[in-house]
Amino acid sequence: MKQLLLIPLGSFVLHQAQAQSPIRQVDPVNFSQVQITDSFWKPKLEKVATVTIPVCIEQSEVKTRRIDNFERAARKKGEKHEGMYYDDSDVYKALEAIAYSLKNHPDPAVEKKADEWIDKIAAAQEPDGYLNTYYTLTGLDKRWTDMEKHEDYCAGHLIEAAIAYYNTTGKRKLLDVAIRFTDHIDRQFRIPNKPWVTGHQEIELALVKLYRTTQDKKYLLLADWLLQQRGHGHGVGKIWDDWKSPQYCQDDLPVADQREIKGHAVRAMYLYTGIADVAAVNNNPAYLPAMKSIWEDVVYRNMYITGGIGSSAHNEGFTTDYDLPNETAYCETCASVGMVFWNQRMNLLTGDAKYMDVLERSLYNGALDGLSLSGNRFFYANPLASHGKYGRSEWFGTACCPSNISRLIASLGDYIYAKTDDAVWVNLFVGSNTTIPLKKGTIKISQETKYPWDGNVTIRVSPDRKTKHKLMVRIPGWAQDEPVPGETYFYLRSAKTNFTLTVNGQPADYTMQHGYAAIDRVWKKGDVVQLDLPMEVRRVAASDSVKADKNRVALQRGPLVYCVEHPDNNGKVSNILLTDDLQFSTSFDPSLLNGVVKVQCEAPVVKAGADGISIQTVKEKITAIPYYAWANRGEGEMQVWMLRKLSNVVLQ
Amino acid sequence: MKQLLLIPLGSFVLHQAQAQSPIRQVDPVNFSQVQITDSFWKPKLEKVATVTIPVCIEQSEVKTRRIDNFERAARKKGEKHEGMYYDDSDVYKALEAIAYSLKNHPDPAVEKKADEWIDKIAAAQEPDGYLNTYYTLTGLDKRWTDMEKHEDYCAGHLIEAAIAYYNTTGKRKLLDVAIRFTDHIDRQFRIPNKPWVTGHQEIELALVKLYRTTQDKKYLLLADWLLQQRGHGHGVGKIWDDWKSPQYCQDDLPVADQREIKGHAVRAMYLYTGIADVAAVNNNPAYLPAMKSIWEDVVYRNMYITGGIGSSAHNEGFTTDYDLPNETAYCETCASVGMVFWNQRMNLLTGDAKYMDVLERSLYNGALDGLSLSGNRFFYANPLASHGKYGRSEWFGTACCPSNISRLIASLGDYIYAKTDDAVWVNLFVGSNTTIPLKKGTIKISQETKYPWDGNVTIRVSPDRKTKHKLMVRIPGWAQDEPVPGETYFYLRSAKTNFTLTVNGQPADYTMQHGYAAIDRVWKKGDVVQLDLPMEVRRVAASDSVKADKNRVALQRGPLVYCVEHPDNNGKVSNILLTDDLQFSTSFDPSLLNGVVKVQCEAPVVKAGADGISIQTVKEKITAIPYYAWANRGEGEMQVWMLRKLSNVVLQ
Repeated sequence: MKQLLLIPLGSFVLHQAQAQSPIRQVDPVNFSQVQITDSFWKPKLEKVATVTIPVCIEQSEVKTRRIDNFERAARKKGEKHEGMYYDDSDVYKALEAIAYSLKNHPDPAVEKKADEWIDKIAAAQEPDGYLNTYYTLTGLDKRWTDMEKHEDYCAGHLIEAAIAYYNTTGKRKLLDVAIRFTDHIDRQFRIPNKPWVTGHQEIELALVKLYRTTQDKKYLLLADWLLQQRGHGHGVGKIWDDWKSPQYCQDDLPVADQREIKGHAVRAMYLYTGIADVAAVNNNPAYLPAMKSIWEDVVYRNMYITGGIGSSAHNEGFTTDYDLPNETAYCETCASVGMVFWNQRMNLLTGDAKYMDVLERSLYNGALDGLSLSGNRFFYANPLASHGKYGRSEWFGTACCPSNISRLIASLGDYIYAKTDDAVWVNLFVGSNTTIPLKKGTIKISQETKYPWDGNVTIRVSPDRKTKHKLMVRIPGWAQDEPVPGETYFYLRSAKTNFTLTVNGQPADYTMQHGYAAIDRVWKKGDVVQLDLPMEVRRVAASDSVKADKNRVALQRGPLVYCVEHPDNNGKVSNILLTDDLQFSTSFDPSLLNGVVKVQCEAPVVKAGADGISIQTVKEKITAIPYYAWANRGEGEMQVWMLRKLSNVVLQ
Repeated sequence: MKQLLLIPLGSFVLHQAQAQSPIRQVDPVNFSQVQITDSFWKPKLEKVATVTIPVCIEQSEVKTRRIDNFERAARKKGEKHEGMYYDDSDVYKALEAIAYSLKNHPDPAVEKKADEWIDKIAAAQEPDGYLNTYYTLTGLDKRWTDMEKHEDYCAGHLIEAAIAYYNTTGKRKLLDVAIRFTDHIDRQFRIPNKPWVTGHQEIELALVKLYRTTQDKKYLLLADWLLQQRGHGHGVGKIWDDWKSPQYCQDDLPVADQREIKGHAVRAMYLYTGIADVAAVNNNPAYLPAMKSIWEDVVYRNMYITGGIGSSAHNEGFTTDYDLPNETAYCETCASVGMVFWNQRMNLLTGDAKYMDVLERSLYNGALDGLSLSGNRFFYANPLASHGKYGRSEWFGTACCPSNISRLIASLGDYIYAKTDDAVWVNLFVGSNTTIPLKKGTIKISQETKYPWDGNVTIRVSPDRKTKHKLMVRIPGWAQDEPVPGETYFYLRSAKTNFTLTVNGQPADYTMQHGYAAIDRVWKKGDVVQLDLPMEVRRVAASDSVKADKNRVALQRGPLVYCVEHPDNNGKVSNILLTDDLQFSTSFDPSLLNGVVKVQCEAPVVKAGADGISIQTVKEKITAIPYYAWANRGEGEMQVWMLRKLSNVVLQ
């Protein structure tokens, strides 16, 4: 994560990190440098700022009173801890979301609230730097005895919140708290080399952020030390009880020896993000093959078409290859958020657009689905079908998802652009602008687009002086008939690869490089690049290995996966056939679900007669909506994967 | 349990117990006094003797090697325990089944095998009487520290096996072992009054059997002492981890204060059998209201039409009232066996036939379903619907069910007859004969019947001399339009209550007393009573409170619940409508499923066209079979509750 601030900080200096490793190909452009103007995303960022973050604040202060634990810990009067042992992390994640949001949506009242919280958090810190209200209130003698108790996980979220808040506001009080706690952990484990396996990974990726923020190498060393702890039988504690085994938190093998995805999905995503982060700096040659193999195992055999992962609620994670049931799909919101993190890191490591394709899929579908259009209702699980008994919640006992989706949306600016010495990379198509310093000069870049509703993207490139450099424009895999790299999903009928790219109105001279159209030319102020992506409705089928999708088809348009939902289809969708001959029409409907492109067709629908005995197939107009927008109009039937022809009829 | 043997036994005497309590109304007639000649049941007892028991022996000795633990424990050479900590109980239950079976099917080789096992069990006993191979092999210092470890449960099954083997063979070696272990438990807990809550109840009912066998009152006192331990917060140990709470094993309230059914179904059944057993002797006035209230909660609101209980696999037990899903019904075989035990005790306590109605329902449906027709395949769960992915198993890791259904079938003789001072009670209609001593003389009684295929039962009553006494003939609730007492299930169209009862060809002079036709007359040798029960097909509906059965109908004929299964209906049953206008025909088919009465009708069936789009309802001949006989011809669809008219169509 890049910093543009230069502030003295004790014995070291915060500065814009320039560390380039032999592995790391690309550097991201930080959210704090990106202005978002997009017609699709800006309202969502506003909703997070004006609705979701106030909900997180109200939950933290009034309804679930998670702030109280910090106050009680600070008073040191032997009061009780309330809630779960990991609840501190919800406060940190809410703070992190606030930090990102303040960049896009300055709000003095919210900033004041954040400062108040930070004072309370700082007051709860122990003299030795330790900070965890659960153990401060239940007995510090038991701290660091149970890997499952999320002490390090909470520390990781504290670090991330502190860095984000520092990046937006320049205020470093929370950063100092985080540094003191991290130094405590370093003294507790790495320096004496006392084994410790993080029960719920998270701190590893946070430590690399802290290294990049402070340039203090010990945080990188601690991150890597924690990674190296895994897979040697050090992991013990409550987590191994009952059905939880070492593979539940990816502790069954040393990380460099891991080749398959296993266990708890969010833990896995955070771990692999941390590994990719460490590899980007220390160039450990063993990490990249592990990452690539596990990534293929996830994306080729264990990912839903929505980019969601972790099919089972039982272990909140992975089961067997191709076991992707739709109605019971767990697909935790946090796991899709984790897919965004990990795939960004893999893209930065390799410069390959296939990781951005997956990031975009998880972002626009599996993750975005986690937040209601109203901004105040949430999904923990994001199934791909419902018989009508599933709806959004106001909050959760374990409330990781609401603040996680909030911080992801608020930090969207982190994922749009990237840079190398001589190139600007456009990864996501989001109306926005930024200024990127390359070796030879500074480039202003902006995008205007109605994406994902429309495939036209106008990219304006304005260098401060005429310079030769590359513009790397990601051409999504779906625009090249590669919906997802791998074996699981494929287009039923090949769409013509008909994206077009022009520079100042003339066909662009480009070469394709790992999924990017690389335009290598001398750029001058006011240059305009036009990208036009093919936005026809694509019919997607799944490999025969995915039993749940047998004889079924899903619809995708651009990056969006579609679904059919009850309110648009006479209250019922499980009686619809999407036969292979259907013709689809599309139109933007500004009154539907805050404005979406809907997909329609005349499809065969099975209807029972009023006599309760007769039955027939009739043609009816069917409407499909973007998957992310379902469950905003009450509970009812929804399906992503629709039958192609009648096979089995079950009467209910 | 009555004993007819008179054998000196140390300081006390085994004799025919005459203890009559103010509560207990009726005494059972012991299996060892009953010869079974029935055309329905005798082949099943033979199958258990010739197939199931050899399977249990092979599993115990060769496949799961549960006998080895006893040998290792006897050697005391520090060898390892293998398997689960409760595996001793499977050996004891197999022995108990052998004991009952030897009565009906003498087999010197099997008896020799049992004697060998008994020698090994006796050799594994500790000098202080303690007997549990798990703790002997893993460390006796930890015995009696964890209520979940089933030490008392295993003791209970040891006691039951010992008594059964003694009753059949007169051999008392195992009984002596059981007595020594029981005395150890009594010294360990009751005498010092040291709190102990049985984690899996079972020993309580076994202790009452031991009291009735030995007439030593301390065993009754120990049983009641254990009951009184519950509900005072004494229960601790692993069992309270995670999702298991005190109510899981009915330890949330003192037993006399309990009014609702909760928790693990088998634990509950064994507990309530034990309470009813103790109440029958000690006349604790607080126990009967608890029993009656809980029984109503089970039968009125938490029992399947098959007599199965415990709808959830999660806790192997009860959830909320009327939560009775069909496909995911757990209905453990052992829980139906437990329903037979408990309802027998309730019937003996009260003399009310409604308990026998439930016993018969559980016996002929939920329990009998647990054993394949071949005798060597088993069900642990007995669902009421299958989409085709459920089949019988050869054995289970936790193998409670196979030996439990074996011992139940082999001990059928325990449930047919009962007696009071001046009456003989006929509870089940099973071809059989016995001799019952009443106060005024001895009565020979026999039954001849093709029940449950036919409603005619010939009862021959032959007193040794002319005497006036009562013959109490149970008239099943279903024969009086009361399929189950209570709120859950009811007949859609009232069947005429047209049972007939004659004595020597003349209409009998009887009064109805709590579900029994009481014929009070002077009986003489050769008297013949004819009962004719109405056997038409009954359509049963469920209360609206049972959501899973909404708009559905089940078929029942006599005591048998029917189902439709794939092999009889073109491979598919979830597309059938059992509309209200259907006419049913019945016929005995000797070639079907070892001979059953099948129920047939012309019913509407929904069929998809070959084009994969069109669909229509056609009339087809549908065949229903007794529920207990399903899953003997491969995996496929099965349903007990059939749709009455089309409501929801789900395409798959």
